[in-house]
Amino acid sequence: MQLGLVGLGKMGGNMAQRLRSDGHEVIGYDRNPESNRSAASLEEMVAALSAPRVVWVMVPSGAPTRATIADLAKVLEAGDLIIDGGNSRYTDDQMHAKDLVEQGIKYVDAGVSGGVWGLTEGYALMVGGDDDAVAMAQPIFDSLKPAGAGGFVHAGPVGAGHFTKMVHNGIEYGMMQAYAEGYELLQATDLVPSPDAVFSSWQQGTVIRSWLLDLLVLAVADDPGLEQVRGYAQDSGEGRWTIEAAIEHAVPMPVITAALFARFASRQTESPAMKVIAALRNQFGGHAVGTAGSTTDVPVS
Amino acid sequence: MQLGLVGLGKMGGNMAQRLRSDGHEVIGYDRNPESNRSAASLEEMVAALSAPRVVWVMVPSGAPTRATIADLAKVLEAGDLIIDGGNSRYTDDQMHAKDLVEQGIKYVDAGVSGGVWGLTEGYALMVGGDDDAVAMAQPIFDSLKPAGAGGFVHAGPVGAGHFTKMVHNGIEYGMMQAYAEGYELLQATDLVPSPDAVFSSWQQGTVIRSWLLDLLVLAVADDPGLEQVRGYAQDSGEGRWTIEAAIEHAVPMPVITAALFARFASRQTESPAMKVIAALRNQFGGHAVGTAGSTTDVPVS
Amino acid sequence: MQLGLVGLGKMGGNMAQRLRSDGHEVIGYDRNPESNRSAASLEEMVAALSAPRVVWVMVPSGAPTRATIADLAKVLEAGDLIIDGGNSRYTDDQMHAKDLVEQGIKYVDAGVSGGVWGLTEGYALMVGGDDDAVAMAQPIFDSLKPAGAGGFVHAGPVGAGHFTKMVHNGIEYGMMQAYAEGYELLQATDLVPSPDAVFSSWQQGTVIRSWLLDLLVLAVADDPGLEQVRGYAQDSGEGRWTIEAAIEHAVPMPVITAALFARFASRQTESPAMKVIAALRNQFGGHAVGTAGSTTDVPVS
Amino acid sequence: MQLGLVGLGKMGGNMAQRLRSDGHEVIGYDRNPESNRSAASLEEMVAALSAPRVVWVMVPSGAPTRATIADLAKVLEAGDLIIDGGNSRYTDDQMHAKDLVEQGIKYVDAGVSGGVWGLTEGYALMVGGDDDAVAMAQPIFDSLKPAGAGGFVHAGPVGAGHFTKMVHNGIEYGMMQAYAEGYELLQATDLVPSPDAVFSSWQQGTVIRSWLLDLLVLAVADDPGLEQVRGYAQDSGEGRWTIEAAIEHAVPMPVITAALFARFASRQTESPAMKVIAALRNQFGGHAVGTAGSTTDVPVS
Repeated sequence: MQLGLVGLGKMGGNMAQRLRSDGHEVIGYDRNPESNRSAASLEEMVAALSAPRVVWVMVPSGAPTRATIADLAKVLEAGDLIIDGGNSRYTDDQMHAKDLVEQGIKYVDAGVSGGVWGLTEGYALMVGGDDDAVAMAQPIFDSLKPAGAGGFVHAGPVGAGHFTKMVHNGIEYGMMQAYAEGYELLQATDLVPSPDAVFSSWQQGTVIRSWLLDLLVLAVADDPGLEQVRGYAQDSGEGRWTIEAAIEHAVPMPVITAALFARFASRQTESPAMKVIAALRNQFGGHAVGTAGSTTDVPVS
Repeated sequence: MQLGLVGLGKMGGNMAQRLRSDGHEVIGYDRNPESNRSAASLEEMVAALSAPRVVWVMVPSGAPTRATIADLAKVLEAGDLIIDGGNSRYTDDQMHAKDLVEQGIKYVDAGVSGGVWGLTEGYALMVGGDDDAVAMAQPIFDSLKPAGAGGFVHAGPVGAGHFTKMVHNGIEYGMMQAYAEGYELLQATDLVPSPDAVFSSWQQGTVIRSWLLDLLVLAVADDPGLEQVRGYAQDSGEGRWTIEAAIEHAVPMPVITAALFARFASRQTESPAMKVIAALRNQFGGHAVGTAGSTTDVPVS
Repeated sequence: MQLGLVGLGKMGGNMAQRLRSDGHEVIGYDRNPESNRSAASLEEMVAALSAPRVVWVMVPSGAPTRATIADLAKVLEAGDLIIDGGNSRYTDDQMHAKDLVEQGIKYVDAGVSGGVWGLTEGYALMVGGDDDAVAMAQPIFDSLKPAGAGGFVHAGPVGAGHFTKMVHNGIEYGMMQAYAEGYELLQATDLVPSPDAVFSSWQQGTVIRSWLLDLLVLAVADDPGLEQVRGYAQDSGEGRWTIEAAIEHAVPMPVITAALFARFASRQTESPAMKVIAALRNQFGGHAVGTAGSTTDVPVS
Repeated sequence: MQLGLVGLGKMGGNMAQRLRSDGHEVIGYDRNPESNRSAASLEEMVAALSAPRVVWVMVPSGAPTRATIADLAKVLEAGDLIIDGGNSRYTDDQMHAKDLVEQGIKYVDAGVSGGVWGLTEGYALMVGGDDDAVAMAQPIFDSLKPAGAGGFVHAGPVGAGHFTKMVHNGIEYGMMQAYAEGYELLQATDLVPSPDAVFSSWQQGTVIRSWLLDLLVLAVADDPGLEQVRGYAQDSGEGRWTIEAAIEHAVPMPVITAALFARFASRQTESPAMKVIAALRNQFGGHAVGTAGSTTDVPVS
C-alpha cells in the first residue's frame, strides 16, 4: 500500500527500506534536503498519496512531533490517518487525537522497538487507536513486524501504544541495570578472572538468557572488560514517564526507579547529596581529622 | 564415564537421566529408599566406582551438603573428586576444598541453571576449581550442558562456580522484578485491556525478549491475569548472598536489593514499619480524624 | 492587622485562634455554616476588610483551592493580596500568580508545617512571592511562626514557598521510613525485648534525636508495640510531587522514593508484581511442588 | 568508682575527662606512649584497680578489640567485668562473652552515641548484658549519659547493646540521606536561591527538626553551599551490618540500604555498572552516533 513517512533518520530511513522491500510505496519526507527524501515538502508528500491517506510520523517526541502533526493537519483531510511512531508520551497522543477528530482525521500511536536491528529482524509494534484506524494501516504493521506470531499488539485505544512502549522501556531499564550490577560484582571479586567469559557462557541454558544478554556479549567481544566505554548513561524520556505513571497509579516500582536514578547519578561528576553526608559526618564525628599514633580511633557517631 | 551421584530429587534425578541417555554410567544414591537409587549407601555407591572416582553431590545447600561431603570424605581416597552441584554458598566451597585437600581429594563447585527444563534443553554450568580437577569431569559437563558454544564456563578457582551462579540468580531476581513491575503498571491503567496480550507480543522483535519473558507468557496462558496465583514469593539464598557480597565489596546494587526486599515484603501480612509511619502521621496530623462538613481538611504536616 | 481567612478546619481554625490571641483581627469564612465563621460569604468577608486587603486561603489543594482563588479574584481589587497557605503544588502557584497579576492582585504562597502542635508551638512558614507582597503580610507571619530565630523563610519568588514545603515533606517521608525500618528490625530480633524502651532512650544524647522521634515515643507510650495501629499509610501529594520534581531535575532520590513506594505497597492487600514473581518461579522451578521424602530438593533456577 | 579505660583517642579521651569531672577514678591505658595514659601497660592498669575490676575497652572494632579483650583476659580474674564500648558487631560480643564466661569474667557491650559533642552533652548509651554485670558499671553509665530521663537503655542480653547501636546508626544513615536528597533538590531548582537559608529556618516549628538538622545548619554556616566539601563519604561498619541483619531477618530496609549504596557510589570515580548500560545502549541503538542534519533522531530502543 501507499504510505507517507515523515522523518528519514536512522529509524525512519530503515523502516522505509524494510517497507519498500516488502512491496509498499513509501513517499518519504524529511526537512533535511540531503536526506533520501521523495518529496520536498509535506504538501508535496501529501499530494503524492491517494485518499484515504496514511502518514507515519517518525520524528523526535515533544515539540517536533507536535509541530509535524499540526502541519499535517493543515494538508490532510477527513478520512486520512496519522500514525505517530516516535517515542511520544501517551498523554500527547490523547491530545493529538482530540485535536484531529474535529477534522475527521484518524490517529494511531505506535510504539516501535527493535533499534538498529529492526531493519533485518523486524520491529516490535505496540499500537493504540480505534479498530478501523488500526485496520487501515495493518499491511504496514505486518511488513514492519518480525516474522512469527508475536511482535505486534493492538494494545488498546489511543495512547495505549505509547503507554505500552513506555512500560517496555521501563522494563528494559530494570533488566539492563540487573545485568550491570551483576557484571560489576563479578569484576569486584578476585575469584572470577573473566566476567566477559561468564556472560558469554550465560547465553545458553540459563534462566537469564535474553537478547540484551546477547548484545552485552557482542559489546564485550568488541571491548573486553568494557574499558573503552565511559560509565555515563543518558535516559530518553520513557523511563521518567514510567515512574510518573507509577506515581499516578500508586504502583511501587523500586527496580525501575533505581535503574533510572543510577543513570541520573552517572551524569554527576560529584553528588551534591553526598556533600551533605560528608559535612554531617564531619560535624558529629570530626571524621576528617585523624589522631595519628593512637590505637583509639573509634569512629564516633 | 562413571559418575557417583548423591541426591536423586527433582534436579539430581533429571540429571542422571540426561547423563545416562548420553552414555554415562551413573551410580545414584539417595537416602530415600523409595528413590530410583542404584546403591543403598554411600559406601555401596563408592564401591561400585573405579578409581579415580568422580562423585557429584546434589543435595540441599548448607547442613545437608556439608554432612554429605564429610561422609564422602570418609569413604573416598586420594585422587578422587567431589563436585558440589547444589546451591551452596561459595564460602562453603572454600571450606570444603581446604578440608579435602589434606586427604588428596579434589573438589569442584558447579553452579547449575536451567530448572525443570534442563533435562531436555541442557543445564548451564558454572564451575570453579583447579584445571586438572575440572578436566576429570569434563565429559560429564559436556553431556549436561546445552548444545552450542555457551552454557559452560570454568569461572575460576574453587568457589568461582557458585559465586558466578549466585550472581546469575541475583540478576534473575532483578530481571523478574522488572517484568513484574511493568506487568503491575499495565494492570493498573485502564488504557490497556490485556497486559497478557502485550507480554505475548513482546516475545518477538523487542529489546526485552528473553527466556523469562517466554516463561511468563506460558504462565499467563495457563492463568490469564495471574488470578490464581498468590502474590507471595520465597527466596532461596543466592539473592541474599549476592547482597552480602555486594556489601563486602562496596558495590551498589539497588536493583537486585529492591527485588530481594520485594520478596521479603510479599511474605508479610502487614508491614511493621508502616505501623510506625501510620502512628507518626496520627501524632503530628491527627490524620485518622476527619472534620466532617468542613471545606478545610488541609492535611497537616 | 486585619486578615481574611478562608477555611476554618483543623488547620485554619487553629491559625485563626493563634492570630487573634496575638492581637490580629481575623475575619473568617468557611462554606460550612456550622463552622465558627465571621462572615457568611466571601463577599461579606471582603466587605469587612479595609483595602489593601490580605486574604489567607486555607482549603484543600487542587480544585478547592483553585476555585476559591477564582472566586476571590471576583471580589478583590488591585493592591489586595492573596496568600495560599494550603498544600498546593508549586506549579499551581505560578498559574495563580499569573492569572491574578492581570488584575493587580498580589499573590504569595506559604507552606505551613507544624500540624496540630502549631497552635501552641507556632507554625514553620516557607513563603514565596515578591518582596512587597511578603512584606504586606509579615505581621501575620511573625505571629504564626514559633518564637526564636527560625521558623520563617522567604524562600524565593512565587512557588518557592510550596516547593520548599514539598521538599520538607519529602525529607519527612524519608526520615519517618528510616525510623520505621529500624523499629521493624528491632522487633524482628529476639535480642531486644523492648524496642519501645530503646526508642525512648534515644531521645537524649543520640545523633538521631528529633521531634519525629519524640512523637514516636508518645505513640508507643499510648500503644506499646504499636499493636493497635494498622500498617497502612496514606500519602498526601507532596511526596509524589517531590519525586516528580526529582525526575524533572534528574536528581537521584532513592531514599525519599523508597519511602513513598513503601506507602503505596502498604495499601495493597496483595502485590500484583509478586504474582508475576511467583508465577515465574513456578514455571522454571516447579517451586510449588515438593518431592516428599527426598533428600534432594535443590532449589532449581 | 574506679574504672580501667583502654584506648585514649578522641572518644576514650573525652570519656575519661567526663568521668573524672564527675568524681570517678579513671586509670587509662593506650599503647601510644604520647597519650595521656595513667599506666604503661595493661598489667600496670589492672594492678592499679581493686577487685572486682571494671575495664572499659574503647579501641577500634574488629581485630584491635578482639586482641585487647584477649590480652585483658590474661590479666583479669573471676568477678571482673569487661565493657566493650567500641563499635563492635554484636556477633563479636556473643563470642567474647562465651570465651570470658569460662574464666568467670563478666562482659557487657555498650553502644555509645554522641560524637565529639558527648564530652559536654553526655553520651547516649545502649548496653547489653546480664543484670548484675550492668549494675556493676551503673555509676559509670550514669556519669556518661546526658542529664534527663533518656540517654541510657539496658537493651537486652549480651549483644543487644551493639545491636541497638547498629540500628541507631542505620537510622542515622537513612535520615542523613533524606536531608541530603532534599538539599540537592533545592540546589537543583532555580526557584530557591538559598537552600542554606531554608535549612536554617527549618530548625524551628517544622516536623523535620532534629539534631542532625542543627548540625547541617552549623556546617552550611561554615561553608555556604557546601562548596568546600567533597561529595565523598565513608561508611563505618554499622550500616553494612544493619543490612546484613535485615537480610538475616527478612526485613525489607529500602531506605537504609539506599543510603548505604549512595555512600558506596560516592567513592567510585566511575560506575562499572553504568559502563554496561552505556555499552548496551550503544549496541541496540547506536546511541553514541548521531545523524547530523536530520530531523529524525528518534531514540531507538
